[in-house]
Amino acid sequence: MSAMLEQNEAGSQMHGWATDLFPLTRSLTGPGTLATLEYLARLMPGLEICSIRSGTQVFDWVVPDEWIMRDAYVMDEDGIRIIDFQVNNLHVLNYSVPVNDTLTLEELDKHLHSLPDQPEAIPYVTSYYARRWGFCLSHHQRQKLKPGRYKVVIDSEIKPGFLNYGEILIPGREKKEILLSTYVCHPSMANNELSGPVVTTALVRRLLARKDLRYSYRIVFIPETIGSIVYLSRHYQHLKEVTIAGYVITCIGDERTYSFIPSRNGDTLADRVARHVLKHVYPDYKAYSFLDRGSDERQYCSPGIDLPVASVTRSKYGAFPEYHTSLDDLDFVTESGLAGGLDVYQRMLECIEQNCYPVSTVLCEPQLGKRGLYPTLSTKESAKSVKMMMDLIAYSDGKLSLLDIAELINAPMWKLIAILDQLVSADLLKKEYR
Amino acid sequence: MSAMLEQNEAGSQMHGWATDLFPLTRSLTGPGTLATLEYLARLMPGLEICSIRSGTQVFDWVVPDEWIMRDAYVMDEDGIRIIDFQVNNLHVLNYSVPVNDTLTLEELDKHLHSLPDQPEAIPYVTSYYARRWGFCLSHHQRQKLKPGRYKVVIDSEIKPGFLNYGEILIPGREKKEILLSTYVCHPSMANNELSGPVVTTALVRRLLARKDLRYSYRIVFIPETIGSIVYLSRHYQHLKEVTIAGYVITCIGDERTYSFIPSRNGDTLADRVARHVLKHVYPDYKAYSFLDRGSDERQYCSPGIDLPVASVTRSKYGAFPEYHTSLDDLDFVTESGLAGGLDVYQRMLECIEQNCYPVSTVLCEPQLGKRGLYPTLSTKESAKSVKMMMDLIAYSDGKLSLLDIAELINAPMWKLIAILDQLVSADLLKKEYR
Amino acid sequence: MSAMLEQNEAGSQMHGWATDLFPLTRSLTGPGTLATLEYLARLMPGLEICSIRSGTQVFDWVVPDEWIMRDAYVMDEDGIRIIDFQVNNLHVLNYSVPVNDTLTLEELDKHLHSLPDQPEAIPYVTSYYARRWGFCLSHHQRQKLKPGRYKVVIDSEIKPGFLNYGEILIPGREKKEILLSTYVCHPSMANNELSGPVVTTALVRRLLARKDLRYSYRIVFIPETIGSIVYLSRHYQHLKEVTIAGYVITCIGDERTYSFIPSRNGDTLADRVARHVLKHVYPDYKAYSFLDRGSDERQYCSPGIDLPVASVTRSKYGAFPEYHTSLDDLDFVTESGLAGGLDVYQRMLECIEQNCYPVSTVLCEPQLGKRGLYPTLSTKESAKSVKMMMDLIAYSDGKLSLLDIAELINAPMWKLIAILDQLVSADLLKKEYR
Repeated sequence: MSAMLEQNEAGSQMHGWATDLFPLTRSLTGPGTLATLEYLARLMPGLEICSIRSGTQVFDWVVPDEWIMRDAYVMDEDGIRIIDFQVNNLHVLNYSVPVNDTLTLEELDKHLHSLPDQPEAIPYVTSYYARRWGFCLSHHQRQKLKPGRYKVVIDSEIKPGFLNYGEILIPGREKKEILLSTYVCHPSMANNELSGPVVTTALVRRLLARKDLRYSYRIVFIPETIGSIVYLSRHYQHLKEVTIAGYVITCIGDERTYSFIPSRNGDTLADRVARHVLKHVYPDYKAYSFLDRGSDERQYCSPGIDLPVASVTRSKYGAFPEYHTSLDDLDFVTESGLAGGLDVYQRMLECIEQNCYPVSTVLCEPQLGKRGLYPTLSTKESAKSVKMMMDLIAYSDGKLSLLDIAELINAPMWKLIAILDQLVSADLLKKEYR
Repeated sequence: MSAMLEQNEAGSQMHGWATDLFPLTRSLTGPGTLATLEYLARLMPGLEICSIRSGTQVFDWVVPDEWIMRDAYVMDEDGIRIIDFQVNNLHVLNYSVPVNDTLTLEELDKHLHSLPDQPEAIPYVTSYYARRWGFCLSHHQRQKLKPGRYKVVIDSEIKPGFLNYGEILIPGREKKEILLSTYVCHPSMANNELSGPVVTTALVRRLLARKDLRYSYRIVFIPETIGSIVYLSRHYQHLKEVTIAGYVITCIGDERTYSFIPSRNGDTLADRVARHVLKHVYPDYKAYSFLDRGSDERQYCSPGIDLPVASVTRSKYGAFPEYHTSLDDLDFVTESGLAGGLDVYQRMLECIEQNCYPVSTVLCEPQLGKRGLYPTLSTKESAKSVKMMMDLIAYSDGKLSLLDIAELINAPMWKLIAILDQLVSADLLKKEYR
Repeated sequence: MSAMLEQNEAGSQMHGWATDLFPLTRSLTGPGTLATLEYLARLMPGLEICSIRSGTQVFDWVVPDEWIMRDAYVMDEDGIRIIDFQVNNLHVLNYSVPVNDTLTLEELDKHLHSLPDQPEAIPYVTSYYARRWGFCLSHHQRQKLKPGRYKVVIDSEIKPGFLNYGEILIPGREKKEILLSTYVCHPSMANNELSGPVVTTALVRRLLARKDLRYSYRIVFIPETIGSIVYLSRHYQHLKEVTIAGYVITCIGDERTYSFIPSRNGDTLADRVARHVLKHVYPDYKAYSFLDRGSDERQYCSPGIDLPVASVTRSKYGAFPEYHTSLDDLDFVTESGLAGGLDVYQRMLECIEQNCYPVSTVLCEPQLGKRGLYPTLSTKESAKSVKMMMDLIAYSDGKLSLLDIAELINAPMWKLIAILDQLVSADLLKKEYR
């Protein structure tokens, strides 16, 4: 199957998974998130669903009570559900406490959330740590509400229970690990939620299919912030010992651009590989600073944790108008957008896997001609290839990694990987691993 | 009293001191400089006036004989003092030997100094180490001199005596010292002389009023060049041991701009703090190179002395047309100009005082909400404050100083100092001192 | 003799040598190259001609058989030599095997080389390692060839023999060496061949005339690529021990520009000195990257050899249209072009020779006045000189080399050398050598 066809198929498959998962009412805790993890576990044999009891102290935080959301609506005097959780789960403020009351419009209005600047969009609003209830609706709808009495029902429950997350470890030849982290805690949103888990799932399935992994891969599907804090509180010492690079995978399914958010250190292997791949795949990518961080790299890079975790996204959270609204849907996230995101992450992982230290086995330049390493037909493309080969040899002094060399000669590392293999076969270079 | 009012009052007070000191005939030595030091000593209890005998060898130099200047004039045939030291002490060439003679205009002219390009200004001219006499006058006046005979009198004396300078040490908790150096050797000039001593005096008075100083402060009021050489010849070994930052304070009273002259090293604490403060207070400040040096940093930064001494000025010596002329007067130096200079130096000293290493006491981000560290009313300004707080925590890894962090997150250090104190009170950060 | 006259004379002399050497049929091996070396040996007493047997393994290469080229022509049916090696030795493909045949135009055409884009130029073509024969001619001439039968004669021989190169070592006070390498392997070409050997010869003659050399100078005249590989295979361990800087001297005789090709390291003494000199002599020089390398620095800088070898050229090989054609002749290379190239290399060697660590012998600034180091007549030029003197003293802390200081104060090192000597005579600075 051609690479292009494979990409298309992967895009279509990922979009299908996202479509299945879209209606579930995810949050930090609760049945929607658990159902999401169970769905993913069916796609990734070996994915373990882990639980932690609410009330558990995790560093400076306490695991919140479980939120069970069954139904919610606002009904007008004609008995019509004018705001209905069954139609769109964004309509209910996430972590709403239960309510069953009849209110005047004026009373109801204090519990409504809408966006005057985006009057068609239902906003996504949460209140995880302060107990309240509320409804979210489009500003247009809000403006049309007539004075009168409204029946207000939220059939929810907040009670001791569990926070769940998924984890899988794919072992490689080395104990050193690559960490991939994505979140499962937003209800019906596509880019700033489902794009992350589905691209990560596709990556995991490809990694599982390989027999030749150099590094071990640890992948977690967690509720944002509290989930990474929970995970780190349990595993940070191990992670600090073995993690050589990591990424937070989110907002990776639209088609507008690519974006890079560095680790706090800013120059780890994770950062360097991400910049390298993006520069060659999408030179106009948007480079953010660590000051623009906003997802779980906040925890992974916090003082004392100090993991080398960066993030590549397409349109970054907060930097696209659909963000945290009902407009972040399955039209905004496309098959092609997801496929592009998957491609970039695959290239990054491959660059990390293949990043060795090439060492020349001969002194002075080797005579490529006698080995048939000069192309017989000289085209512009082949001349470029020979130049790349000569440059790779010229820099293979054992002090520079393949990534260093790729940067020095401004060549995409995936081209160098192929040339390096040719030169290793010809006994002109050898690979050292450190 | 509001900060603004305090500033105004300080500006007015400094300008008053400058007005008192303006008429004194200062030079490297002599009664005018001594009177200046005595005036300053009355403002700063503890300021010691130190003396060194002329003829003393100090490194490659010899302390010059004392210059006593009593009166000087050029009188025309009508008995009118057409050039009169009593009117403006710039009229006499500084360090003039005595003369009492009657000369033709032609003979006199060889001893006159004026500025064709600034015909209204009396230039300031010195001849410290070659014995001569002379008069300085505006070019307009010089052009109007008629042929005839002129009586020329300079009632001066050059004889063994003393060079005087002022010194004060304000002890802090630590032995480490901040060095402030300003000069007292130019006669009636305001920016390139009096602005330095009066701003320094105001700084000293504020330091003396404090009980909580971390560092010790050594402040010297010296004749330029020979004074710093004298001072260093006596104290450089001690200074090299204890000085962590220093500034030459001069030309700090006009309103045109701010300027920065780095130390020879260019990246000492003194340099970094100066750049940081100026960037936030006056982003358009003029950044010079050490090649543009011209005051006592020449001695403090000389090889083997190697002190971390930089300089912040308003319009730099040599870079404003009034420099070294009678136009550098008490109109050019303003209350507001002096107050601005004082403010910048105060901020710099405060940044040095408060520059600790913040260390996070929790792993992962702390939960600010439960501590009331999130503002209840969310305004643009409070959002900026919370972001600054989160960024400060994110970088508090114990490897970065508060100044490093301020630079990384592009926030003025004085805002971070307040936030740091909040976080220390909340037990989320602690301060380490190195 | 004035410096300008000396330059003119040197240019004329070098152009004369190039004119003598132009007709010789140089190649990797053979009598033309040997005759060239013998000619040069007469100009440089002590130049040794070294030989290595063909067939010898040198690293990854084998020394090729010797090519003896006696005569070659294409004769038309009228018995006229329409392509004649005696007229221009570029007409024969370099390393052509012998041939003696009569061919149709169609058959002949397969062995012809011309340049459609430069229809007046005879191209220079080689086939060192694949055995073939051919003729090179202008495209205009090629287009005029009429159908018919052509007698084709190449009276050449390829047989075991020797590869020759020249070497001279000029000892200095120190064992540390400067390496100069130039090539002798192209037939009648002026810039991309003879400019290198003649400028190098002039340099050697000047070095030989000096009695005060600090460093030892090793100079080699070698066939490109295989010659440096041969030389390195014999001497690389010694060179690695003693070489502190080196240059490949080629394309150094036209007048269009100057160019710099860095070593692989890019920041060795050789690189820094070359950049420094070019910046001051010809600020618009073209700075290339090591990726643009193309001569023997490819071998000198290869992994495991790692010599600090850079290159300064005028128009770089490959970057001028006359390159590798009959247009690269003695009109393109001029007396003035060669003289400029010699001047730049002389300045570079002088900068290396004089690059010491100046150390101030006094603390604080010295009093220059009392030593007469202030000019009595103050001109713009003398003010610049005094400023340079003050700056040199200010940076003479023993940590910076004279080259470092020259860069810091943006002054050409040759001006500082003179000032440094003045200050050493005045006992204000001393020179340290490391």
